[in-house]
Amino acid sequence: MTPIQYQECIEACIKCMNACNYSYVSSLKEYDLALLRDTIRMDRECADICGYAIQAMTRQSPFVAEICRLCAEICEACAEVCNRNVHIQCKNCIQACLDCAEACRQISEAVAVYA
Amino acid sequence: MTPIQYQECIEACIKCMNACNYSYVSSLKEYDLALLRDTIRMDRECADICGYAIQAMTRQSPFVAEICRLCAEICEACAEVCNRNVHIQCKNCIQACLDCAEACRQISEAVAVYA
Amino acid sequence: MTPIQYQECIEACIKCMNACNYSYVSSLKEYDLALLRDTIRMDRECADICGYAIQAMTRQSPFVAEICRLCAEICEACAEVCNRNVHIQCKNCIQACLDCAEACRQISEAVAVYA
Amino acid sequence: MTPIQYQECIEACIKCMNACNYSYVSSLKEYDLALLRDTIRMDRECADICGYAIQAMTRQSPFVAEICRLCAEICEACAEVCNRNVHIQCKNCIQACLDCAEACRQISEAVAVYA
Repeated sequence: MTPIQYQECIEACIKCMNACNYSYVSSLKEYDLALLRDTIRMDRECADICGYAIQAMTRQSPFVAEICRLCAEICEACAEVCNRNVHIQCKNCIQACLDCAEACRQISEAVAVYA
Repeated sequence: MTPIQYQECIEACIKCMNACNYSYVSSLKEYDLALLRDTIRMDRECADICGYAIQAMTRQSPFVAEICRLCAEICEACAEVCNRNVHIQCKNCIQACLDCAEACRQISEAVAVYA
Repeated sequence: MTPIQYQECIEACIKCMNACNYSYVSSLKEYDLALLRDTIRMDRECADICGYAIQAMTRQSPFVAEICRLCAEICEACAEVCNRNVHIQCKNCIQACLDCAEACRQISEAVAVYA
Repeated sequence: MTPIQYQECIEACIKCMNACNYSYVSSLKEYDLALLRDTIRMDRECADICGYAIQAMTRQSPFVAEICRLCAEICEACAEVCNRNVHIQCKNCIQACLDCAEACRQISEAVAVYA
């Protein structure tokens, strides 16, 4: 597994972190804020693990498989929570989360096979 | 699961992060640096996941079980790598890693039962 | 500047991170959520820089002075924002932020003199 | 200052984090490891602050100016330390650090004017 193979997953993680943090900031400005409590919490969770996964991949961590698997789980949970809302930032976030989850699962499985 | 129940594990994580980062800095100053390559890398891995787990517990993350399980795995791997060396900072690091791994596994299992 | 001298500041940072993340989670559950938008954002900012400062001190970063100065500024800003609210978690957060700011400023100045 | 204006700086930070972590891993594998002690430490410092700055920009932190200023300082210090070595990973790292420092200074000044 060379760092080059991580590139696509790193980019998916960055897009996801970006979308989650944008959803987080935008949701905190919404009028119907009370409906967005879970979204706000989950956006932070997801942005944080994406940041962690990016660091891990760029430093070729021996735990990339485990970290990316966890990242995929949190991304999927975030997509599910965002799916309950109608706001545009939540809709954009869902796709970024699902793309990131898929990229992370691929890395996780590819690395686990190599190890 | 109340935040109070996390307190002991948070403290074990802080001690472990402290010991790993101390081992990291001290190892980088050693004469026989070449024997410490894996230790240096693992110390950073372990300090980083401990910091991540502390944040997760203090914000009552819905993923505390998964994050603490991963933290326990990395702590155990770090203890194993440190065990190959004779340096005092590595010896101190082993115990902190094993204590942290145990505390993280307890939290992980306790939270998983509640969920 | 030895790591032992950082111990008090590390503990102040942990208490502050804890108080900020507790305020964050509690605020997201409040009925009058709309009044707490700024508090929620600031709590995350403050918890994140405290986590960063802890890592930096435990690894004896050459930038401890600069990082602790930034941490002090963010802690003070967080205390100010929390001061606008009447909630108990915000009140507890203020004191932790101010204590952390003071500890960080002391470290920042002590390290800067040494450097 | 809109999030779109951060995009270029975010990308410079990612490139820098990538180059620093690559230099970190590669340096730990080098034969003349003893000459690379400072580089290894600085690479980690720089990769960590870049990761922090990326999170801060994507969540539109009120402290983007201060965080990017600190990131620029650490990038410049890292470039200086890498400059002492002849290794290819260090050479690549220097340019990424200098580019990132410039992008961070621009953001820092632009945001400070707005605030």
